[in-house]
Amino acid sequence: MEKLTLHEDVRSGNCYKIRLTAALLGLPLERRNYDIMVGETRTPQFLAEVNANGRIPVLQVGSRFLPESNAACWYLAEGSALIPSDRWDQADMLRWMFWEQYNHEPTIATLRFWLYFIGEANLNEVQLAQLPGKRATGEAALALMDEHLDGREWFVGSAVSLADIALYAYTHVSEAGGFRLRDFGHVCAWLKRVAALPGYVAMG
Amino acid sequence: MEKLTLHEDVRSGNCYKIRLTAALLGLPLERRNYDIMVGETRTPQFLAEVNANGRIPVLQVGSRFLPESNAACWYLAEGSALIPSDRWDQADMLRWMFWEQYNHEPTIATLRFWLYFIGEANLNEVQLAQLPGKRATGEAALALMDEHLDGREWFVGSAVSLADIALYAYTHVSEAGGFRLRDFGHVCAWLKRVAALPGYVAMG
Repeated sequence: MEKLTLHEDVRSGNCYKIRLTAALLGLPLERRNYDIMVGETRTPQFLAEVNANGRIPVLQVGSRFLPESNAACWYLAEGSALIPSDRWDQADMLRWMFWEQYNHEPTIATLRFWLYFIGEANLNEVQLAQLPGKRATGEAALALMDEHLDGREWFVGSAVSLADIALYAYTHVSEAGGFRLRDFGHVCAWLKRVAALPGYVAMG
Repeated sequence: MEKLTLHEDVRSGNCYKIRLTAALLGLPLERRNYDIMVGETRTPQFLAEVNANGRIPVLQVGSRFLPESNAACWYLAEGSALIPSDRWDQADMLRWMFWEQYNHEPTIATLRFWLYFIGEANLNEVQLAQLPGKRATGEAALALMDEHLDGREWFVGSAVSLADIALYAYTHVSEAGGFRLRDFGHVCAWLKRVAALPGYVAMG
Protein backbone atom coordinates (compact mmCIF):
# COMPACT_ATOMS: atom_id res chain seq x y z
CA MET A 1 0.00 0.00 0.00
CA GLU A 2 1.14 3.56 -0.64
CA LYS A 3 2.32 5.66 2.28
CA LEU A 4 -0.53 6.54 4.66
CA THR A 5 -0.72 9.87 6.47
CA LEU A 6 -3.51 10.88 8.83
CA HIS A 7 -4.30 14.59 8.94
CA GLU A 8 -5.89 14.88 12.36
CA ASP A 9 -6.62 16.68 15.61
CA VAL A 10 -5.75 14.21 18.35
CA ARG A 11 -8.81 15.24 20.39
CA SER A 12 -11.18 14.17 17.60
CA GLY A 13 -12.94 10.83 17.85
CA ASN A 14 -13.44 10.86 14.09
CA CYS A 15 -9.64 10.92 13.66
CA TYR A 16 -9.19 8.24 16.31
CA LYS A 17 -11.42 5.84 14.34
CA ILE A 18 -8.92 5.82 11.51
CA ARG A 19 -5.94 5.39 13.83
CA LEU A 20 -7.67 2.50 15.63
CA THR A 21 -8.58 0.81 12.34
CA ALA A 22 -4.99 1.07 11.11
CA ALA A 23 -3.68 -0.26 14.44
CA LEU A 24 -6.01 -3.26 14.45
CA LEU A 25 -4.90 -4.03 10.89
CA GLY A 26 -1.21 -3.47 11.67
CA LEU A 27 -0.89 -0.70 9.06
CA PRO A 28 1.75 2.00 9.65
CA LEU A 29 0.28 5.48 9.69
CA GLU A 30 2.10 8.79 9.84
CA ARG A 31 0.29 11.50 11.76
CA ARG A 32 0.10 15.23 11.16
CA ASN A 33 -1.67 17.26 13.82
CA TYR A 34 -3.80 20.40 13.38
CA ASP A 35 -5.45 22.50 16.08
CA ILE A 36 -9.06 22.96 14.98
CA MET A 37 -9.64 25.45 17.83
CA VAL A 38 -7.42 28.02 16.11
CA GLY A 39 -8.59 27.36 12.55
CA GLU A 40 -5.67 25.34 11.27
CA THR A 41 -7.98 23.36 8.97
CA ARG A 42 -9.47 26.52 7.43
CA THR A 43 -6.29 28.02 6.02
CA PRO A 44 -6.12 28.62 2.24
CA GLN A 45 -3.38 25.98 2.02
CA PHE A 46 -5.41 23.32 3.87
CA LEU A 47 -8.52 24.07 1.81
CA ALA A 48 -6.56 23.88 -1.46
CA GLU A 49 -4.37 20.88 -0.73
CA VAL A 50 -6.02 18.67 1.90
CA ASN A 51 -9.80 19.18 2.10
CA ALA A 52 -11.96 21.86 0.49
CA ASN A 53 -14.51 21.14 3.23
CA GLY A 54 -12.06 22.45 5.87
CA ARG A 55 -12.35 19.48 8.17
CA ILE A 56 -10.24 16.72 9.62
CA PRO A 57 -9.77 13.80 9.51
CA VAL A 58 -8.36 13.32 6.05
CA LEU A 59 -6.53 10.14 5.13
CA GLN A 60 -3.72 10.79 2.67
CA VAL A 61 -2.82 7.80 0.51
CA GLY A 62 0.27 8.64 -1.48
CA SER A 63 -0.69 11.95 -3.09
CA ARG A 64 -4.45 11.49 -2.84
CA PHE A 65 -6.70 12.78 -0.04
CA LEU A 66 -9.77 11.05 1.41
CA PRO A 67 -11.99 12.99 3.85
CA GLU A 68 -14.77 11.54 6.03
CA SER A 69 -13.70 9.25 8.84
CA ASN A 70 -15.88 6.27 8.01
CA ALA A 71 -14.88 6.31 4.34
CA ALA A 72 -11.22 6.34 5.37
CA CYS A 73 -11.81 3.35 7.67
CA TRP A 74 -13.47 1.56 4.76
CA TYR A 75 -10.49 2.23 2.51
CA LEU A 76 -8.03 0.84 5.06
CA ALA A 77 -10.12 -2.23 5.93
CA GLU A 78 -11.10 -3.21 2.39
CA GLY A 79 -10.55 -6.96 1.98
CA SER A 80 -9.97 -7.52 5.72
CA ALA A 81 -12.10 -9.24 8.34
CA LEU A 82 -13.19 -5.81 9.65
CA ILE A 83 -15.63 -5.68 6.72
CA PRO A 84 -17.95 -8.70 6.61
CA SER A 85 -18.16 -10.34 3.21
CA ASP A 86 -21.82 -11.37 3.55
CA ARG A 87 -24.00 -8.98 1.55
CA TRP A 88 -26.55 -8.37 4.33
CA ASP A 89 -23.93 -7.97 7.06
CA GLN A 90 -21.93 -5.55 4.94
CA ALA A 91 -24.96 -3.34 4.36
CA ASP A 92 -25.94 -3.68 8.03
CA MET A 93 -22.45 -2.54 9.04
CA LEU A 94 -22.81 0.53 6.83
CA ARG A 95 -26.24 1.07 8.41
CA TRP A 96 -24.61 1.54 11.83
CA MET A 97 -21.86 3.71 10.36
CA PHE A 98 -24.37 6.05 8.69
CA TRP A 99 -26.43 6.05 11.89
CA GLU A 100 -23.28 7.01 13.80
CA GLN A 101 -22.70 10.05 11.61
CA TYR A 102 -26.33 11.15 11.57
CA ASN A 103 -27.67 10.31 15.06
CA HIS A 104 -24.71 9.70 17.34
CA GLU A 105 -21.90 12.06 16.35
CA PRO A 106 -23.99 15.28 16.12
CA THR A 107 -25.28 14.72 19.67
CA ILE A 108 -22.73 12.73 21.69
CA ALA A 109 -19.58 14.11 20.06
CA THR A 110 -20.95 17.64 19.82
CA LEU A 111 -21.85 17.81 23.52
CA ARG A 112 -18.33 16.61 24.41
CA PHE A 113 -16.86 19.30 22.16
CA TRP A 114 -19.13 22.05 23.48
CA LEU A 115 -18.97 21.19 27.19
CA TYR A 116 -15.46 19.78 27.55
CA PHE A 117 -13.39 21.70 25.00
CA ILE A 118 -15.28 25.00 24.51
CA GLY A 119 -16.92 25.12 27.94
CA GLU A 120 -20.58 25.83 28.72
CA ALA A 121 -19.79 29.41 29.79
CA ASN A 122 -18.43 30.14 26.30
CA LEU A 123 -21.34 28.74 24.28
CA ASN A 124 -23.45 31.11 22.22
CA GLU A 125 -27.23 31.36 22.40
CA VAL A 126 -27.85 29.06 19.44
CA GLN A 127 -25.69 26.36 21.02
CA LEU A 128 -27.29 26.80 24.45
CA ALA A 129 -30.75 26.47 22.93
CA GLN A 130 -29.77 23.12 21.42
CA LEU A 131 -28.37 21.56 24.60
CA PRO A 132 -31.60 19.91 25.87
CA GLY A 133 -32.45 18.44 22.47
CA LYS A 134 -28.95 17.11 21.92
CA ARG A 135 -28.90 15.65 25.43
CA ALA A 136 -32.17 13.78 24.83
CA THR A 137 -31.17 12.56 21.37
CA GLY A 138 -27.77 11.43 22.62
CA GLU A 139 -29.31 9.49 25.49
CA ALA A 140 -31.74 7.88 23.05
CA ALA A 141 -28.78 6.88 20.86
CA LEU A 142 -27.01 5.23 23.80
CA ALA A 143 -30.25 3.46 24.78
CA LEU A 144 -30.67 2.17 21.23
CA MET A 145 -27.11 0.83 21.27
CA ASP A 146 -27.66 -0.75 24.66
CA GLU A 147 -30.83 -2.48 23.50
CA HIS A 148 -29.11 -3.74 20.35
CA LEU A 149 -26.15 -5.10 22.33
CA ASP A 150 -28.42 -7.06 24.69
CA GLY A 151 -27.42 -10.61 23.78
CA ARG A 152 -24.87 -9.53 21.16
CA GLU A 153 -21.10 -9.22 21.44
CA TRP A 154 -20.65 -6.99 18.38
CA PHE A 155 -22.89 -4.70 16.38
CA VAL A 156 -23.02 -6.85 13.25
CA GLY A 157 -22.81 -10.63 13.01
CA SER A 158 -20.46 -12.47 15.33
CA ALA A 159 -17.22 -10.52 14.94
CA VAL A 160 -15.83 -7.03 15.38
CA SER A 161 -16.32 -4.81 12.33
CA LEU A 162 -15.95 -1.16 11.35
CA ALA A 163 -19.37 -0.56 12.92
CA ASP A 164 -17.87 -1.23 16.34
CA ILE A 165 -14.86 0.99 15.67
CA ALA A 166 -17.00 3.87 14.37
CA LEU A 167 -19.31 3.71 17.39
CA TYR A 168 -16.57 3.13 19.95
CA ALA A 169 -14.71 6.35 19.19
CA TYR A 170 -17.12 8.87 20.69
CA THR A 171 -19.02 6.49 22.97
CA HIS A 172 -16.04 5.65 25.14
CA VAL A 173 -15.38 9.33 25.90
CA SER A 174 -19.04 10.36 26.10
CA GLU A 175 -18.88 11.13 29.83
CA ALA A 176 -16.89 14.25 28.88
CA GLY A 177 -20.17 15.41 27.31
CA GLY A 178 -22.15 14.64 30.47
CA PHE A 179 -23.55 11.23 29.53
CA ARG A 180 -23.72 8.50 32.19
CA LEU A 181 -22.27 5.36 30.66
CA ARG A 182 -23.02 3.30 33.79
CA ASP A 183 -26.71 3.55 32.86
CA PHE A 184 -25.95 1.40 29.80
CA GLY A 185 -24.55 -1.93 30.98
CA HIS A 186 -24.42 -3.70 27.63
CA VAL A 187 -22.59 -0.73 26.13
CA CYS A 188 -20.04 -0.81 28.99
CA ALA A 189 -19.38 -4.53 28.45
CA TRP A 190 -18.94 -3.94 24.71
CA LEU A 191 -16.51 -1.05 25.31
CA LYS A 192 -14.33 -3.46 27.30
CA ARG A 193 -14.42 -5.99 24.47
CA VAL A 194 -13.21 -3.37 21.99
CA ALA A 195 -10.42 -2.22 24.34
CA ALA A 196 -9.25 -5.85 24.68
CA LEU A 197 -8.78 -6.39 20.93
CA PRO A 198 -5.25 -7.36 19.81
CA GLY A 199 -3.52 -4.26 18.45
CA TYR A 200 -5.86 -1.82 20.24
CA VAL A 201 -4.49 1.68 20.76
CA ALA A 202 -5.91 4.31 23.09
CA MET A 203 -7.12 7.74 21.96
CA GLY A 204 -4.71 10.63 22.02
CA MET B 1 -33.40 -11.59 -4.60
CA GLU B 2 -35.98 -11.83 -1.83
CA LYS B 3 -39.05 -9.61 -1.98
CA LEU B 4 -38.18 -5.93 -1.47
CA THR B 5 -40.48 -3.54 0.39
CA LEU B 6 -39.72 0.12 1.02
CA HIS B 7 -41.19 1.58 4.22
CA GLU B 8 -41.32 5.26 3.33
CA ASP B 9 -42.86 8.69 3.44
CA VAL B 10 -43.14 9.80 -0.19
CA ARG B 11 -42.07 13.36 0.72
CA SER B 12 -38.70 12.14 2.04
CA GLY B 13 -35.63 12.45 -0.14
CA ASN B 14 -33.95 9.73 1.89
CA CYS B 15 -36.72 7.34 0.82
CA TYR B 16 -36.54 8.52 -2.77
CA LYS B 17 -32.83 7.57 -2.95
CA ILE B 18 -33.76 3.93 -2.46
CA ARG B 19 -36.60 4.07 -4.96
CA LEU B 20 -34.33 5.73 -7.56
CA THR B 21 -31.58 3.16 -6.99
CA ALA B 22 -34.04 0.29 -7.42
CA ALA B 23 -35.46 1.91 -10.56
CA LEU B 24 -32.06 2.43 -12.17
CA LEU B 25 -31.25 -1.22 -11.43
CA GLY B 26 -34.64 -2.48 -12.65
CA LEU B 27 -35.49 -4.04 -9.27
CA PRO B 28 -39.18 -4.34 -8.33
CA LEU B 29 -39.97 -2.61 -5.05
CA GLU B 30 -43.22 -2.65 -3.11
CA ARG B 31 -43.97 0.56 -1.26
CA ARG B 32 -45.67 1.11 2.09
CA ASN B 33 -46.33 4.71 3.06
CA TYR B 34 -46.26 6.31 6.52
CA ASP B 35 -47.11 9.89 7.45
CA ILE B 36 -44.22 11.09 9.63
CA MET B 37 -46.11 14.31 10.41
CA VAL B 38 -48.61 12.37 12.54
CA GLY B 39 -46.13 10.00 14.18
CA GLU B 40 -46.82 6.88 12.13
CA THR B 41 -43.15 5.80 12.48
CA ARG B 42 -43.22 6.18 16.28
CA THR B 43 -45.98 3.69 17.06
CA PRO B 44 -45.11 0.73 19.32
CA GLN B 45 -45.68 -1.61 16.38
CA PHE B 46 -43.33 0.29 14.05
CA LEU B 47 -40.63 0.53 16.73
CA ALA B 48 -40.90 -3.19 17.50
CA GLU B 49 -41.18 -4.56 13.98
CA VAL B 50 -39.65 -2.11 11.51
CA ASN B 51 -37.10 0.24 13.14
CA ALA B 52 -36.35 0.80 16.83
CA ASN B 53 -34.98 4.20 15.80
CA GLY B 54 -38.47 5.33 14.71
CA ARG B 55 -37.44 6.57 11.31
CA ILE B 56 -38.03 5.89 7.65
CA PRO B 57 -36.76 4.80 5.20
CA VAL B 58 -36.38 1.13 6.02
CA LEU B 59 -35.73 -1.39 3.27
CA GLN B 60 -37.37 -4.73 4.03
CA VAL B 61 -35.67 -7.70 2.37
CA GLY B 62 -37.80 -10.76 2.95
CA SER B 63 -38.33 -10.69 6.72
CA ARG B 64 -35.27 -8.54 7.54
CA PHE B 65 -35.23 -4.78 7.97
CA LEU B 66 -32.45 -2.37 6.95
CA PRO B 67 -32.66 1.27 8.11
CA GLU B 68 -30.51 4.18 6.84
CA SER B 69 -31.05 5.26 3.26
CA ASN B 70 -27.47 5.03 2.04
CA ALA B 71 -26.98 1.55 3.52
CA ALA B 72 -30.16 0.40 1.75
CA CYS B 73 -28.87 1.81 -1.56
CA TRP B 74 -25.61 -0.06 -0.98
CA TYR B 75 -27.49 -3.31 -0.39
CA LEU B 76 -29.49 -2.94 -3.60
CA ALA B 77 -26.53 -1.90 -5.75
CA GLU B 78 -24.00 -4.44 -4.46
CA GLY B 79 -22.25 -6.01 -7.45
CA SER B 80 -23.70 -3.49 -9.93
CA ALA B 81 -22.03 -0.67 -11.86
CA LEU B 82 -23.52 1.84 -9.39
CA ILE B 83 -20.71 0.88 -6.98
CA PRO B 84 -17.25 1.28 -8.53
CA SER B 85 -15.02 -1.75 -8.12
CA ASP B 86 -11.80 0.26 -7.83
CA ARG B 87 -10.73 0.47 -4.17
CA TRP B 88 -10.10 4.22 -4.14
CA ASP B 89 -13.24 5.08 -6.08
CA GLN B 90 -15.37 2.90 -3.79
CA ALA B 91 -14.05 4.66 -0.69
CA ASP B 92 -14.40 8.03 -2.42
CA MET B 93 -18.04 7.22 -3.24
CA LEU B 94 -18.65 6.43 0.44
CA ARG B 95 -16.89 9.69 1.30
CA TRP B 96 -19.58 11.65 -0.57
CA MET B 97 -22.35 9.53 0.93
CA PHE B 98 -21.12 10.14 4.49
CA TRP B 99 -20.66 13.83 3.66
CA GLU B 100 -24.24 13.89 2.40
CA GLN B 101 -25.59 12.58 5.69
CA TYR B 102 -23.40 14.80 7.86
CA ASN B 103 -23.13 18.11 5.95
CA HIS B 104 -25.86 18.17 3.31
CA GLU B 105 -28.94 16.44 4.71
CA PRO B 106 -29.03 18.22 8.12
CA THR B 107 -28.98 21.60 6.38
CA ILE B 108 -30.53 21.33 2.92
CA ALA B 109 -33.12 18.66 3.74
CA THR B 110 -33.91 20.10 7.15
CA LEU B 111 -34.61 23.60 5.78
CA ARG B 112 -36.94 22.09 3.18
CA PHE B 113 -38.75 20.16 5.91
CA TRP B 114 -38.98 23.14 8.25
CA LEU B 115 -39.91 25.81 5.71
CA TYR B 116 -41.97 23.84 3.16
CA PHE B 117 -43.71 21.15 5.23
CA ILE B 118 -43.88 22.62 8.76
CA GLY B 119 -43.87 26.29 7.75
CA GLU B 120 -41.76 29.08 9.23
CA ALA B 121 -44.68 30.40 11.30
CA ASN B 122 -44.91 27.05 13.10
CA LEU B 123 -41.22 26.66 13.99
CA ASN B 124 -40.19 26.75 17.63
CA GLU B 125 -37.50 29.04 19.05
CA VAL B 126 -34.76 26.42 18.87
CA GLN B 127 -35.48 25.83 15.19
CA LEU B 128 -35.70 29.55 14.41
CA ALA B 129 -32.33 30.14 16.11
CA GLN B 130 -30.74 27.54 13.84
CA LEU B 131 -32.07 28.96 10.54
CA PRO B 132 -29.14 31.30 9.71
CA GLY B 133 -26.51 28.66 10.51
CA LYS B 134 -28.25 25.99 8.47
CA ARG B 135 -28.71 28.42 5.59
CA ALA B 136 -25.00 29.24 5.52
CA THR B 137 -23.89 25.62 5.89
CA GLY B 138 -26.31 24.48 3.18
CA GLU B 139 -25.08 27.14 0.77
CA ALA B 140 -21.50 26.10 1.51
CA ALA B 141 -22.45 22.50 0.74
CA LEU B 142 -23.92 23.49 -2.63
CA ALA B 143 -20.83 25.58 -3.38
CA LEU B 144 -18.56 22.64 -2.55
CA MET B 145 -20.57 20.39 -4.88
CA ASP B 146 -20.46 23.02 -7.61
CA GLU B 147 -16.70 23.37 -7.33
CA HIS B 148 -16.23 19.60 -7.38
CA LEU B 149 -18.44 19.24 -10.47
CA ASP B 150 -16.47 21.86 -12.41
CA GLY B 151 -14.96 19.69 -15.15
CA ARG B 152 -16.61 16.47 -13.92
CA GLU B 153 -19.76 14.74 -15.11
CA TRP B 154 -20.24 12.62 -11.98
CA PHE B 155 -19.08 12.80 -8.37
CA VAL B 156 -16.72 9.82 -8.54
CA GLY B 157 -14.73 8.56 -11.50
CA SER B 158 -16.34 8.68 -14.92
CA ALA B 159 -19.74 7.08 -14.32
CA VAL B 160 -22.86 7.58 -12.23
CA SER B 161 -22.63 5.96 -8.78
CA LEU B 162 -24.55 5.88 -5.53
CA ALA B 163 -22.81 9.15 -4.59
CA ASP B 164 -24.78 10.90 -7.33
CA ILE B 165 -28.05 9.29 -6.27
CA ALA B 166 -27.53 10.14 -2.60
CA LEU B 167 -26.74 13.77 -3.39
CA TYR B 168 -29.41 14.19 -6.06
CA ALA B 169 -32.31 13.37 -3.76
CA TYR B 170 -32.36 16.52 -1.63
CA THR B 171 -30.41 18.78 -4.00
CA HIS B 172 -32.99 18.66 -6.77
CA VAL B 173 -35.75 19.84 -4.41
CA SER B 174 -33.60 22.26 -2.40
CA GLU B 175 -35.43 25.33 -3.68
CA ALA B 176 -38.31 24.29 -1.40
CA GLY B 177 -35.88 25.11 1.43
CA GLY B 178 -35.07 28.52 -0.02
CA PHE B 179 -31.81 27.68 -1.82
CA ARG B 180 -31.12 29.22 -5.23
CA LEU B 181 -30.00 26.42 -7.53
CA ARG B 182 -29.41 28.82 -10.43
CA ASP B 183 -26.39 30.12 -8.48
CA PHE B 184 -24.71 26.73 -8.99
CA GLY B 185 -24.39 26.07 -12.72
CA HIS B 186 -22.36 22.87 -12.54
CA VAL B 187 -24.86 21.44 -10.06
CA CYS B 188 -27.75 22.32 -12.42
CA ALA B 189 -26.06 20.58 -15.36
CA TRP B 190 -25.40 17.49 -13.22
CA LEU B 191 -29.04 17.39 -12.04
CA LYS B 192 -30.08 17.20 -15.71
CA ARG B 193 -27.65 14.34 -16.33
CA VAL B 194 -29.14 12.36 -13.44
CA ALA B 195 -32.70 12.99 -14.62
CA ALA B 196 -31.75 11.72 -18.11
CA LEU B 197 -30.51 8.33 -16.86
CA PRO B 198 -32.30 5.29 -18.33
CA GLY B 199 -34.82 4.02 -15.78
CA TYR B 200 -34.97 7.35 -13.90
CA VAL B 201 -38.13 7.90 -11.83
CA ALA B 202 -39.28 11.18 -10.36
CA MET B 203 -39.81 11.80 -6.64
CA GLY B 204 -43.25 11.25 -5.16
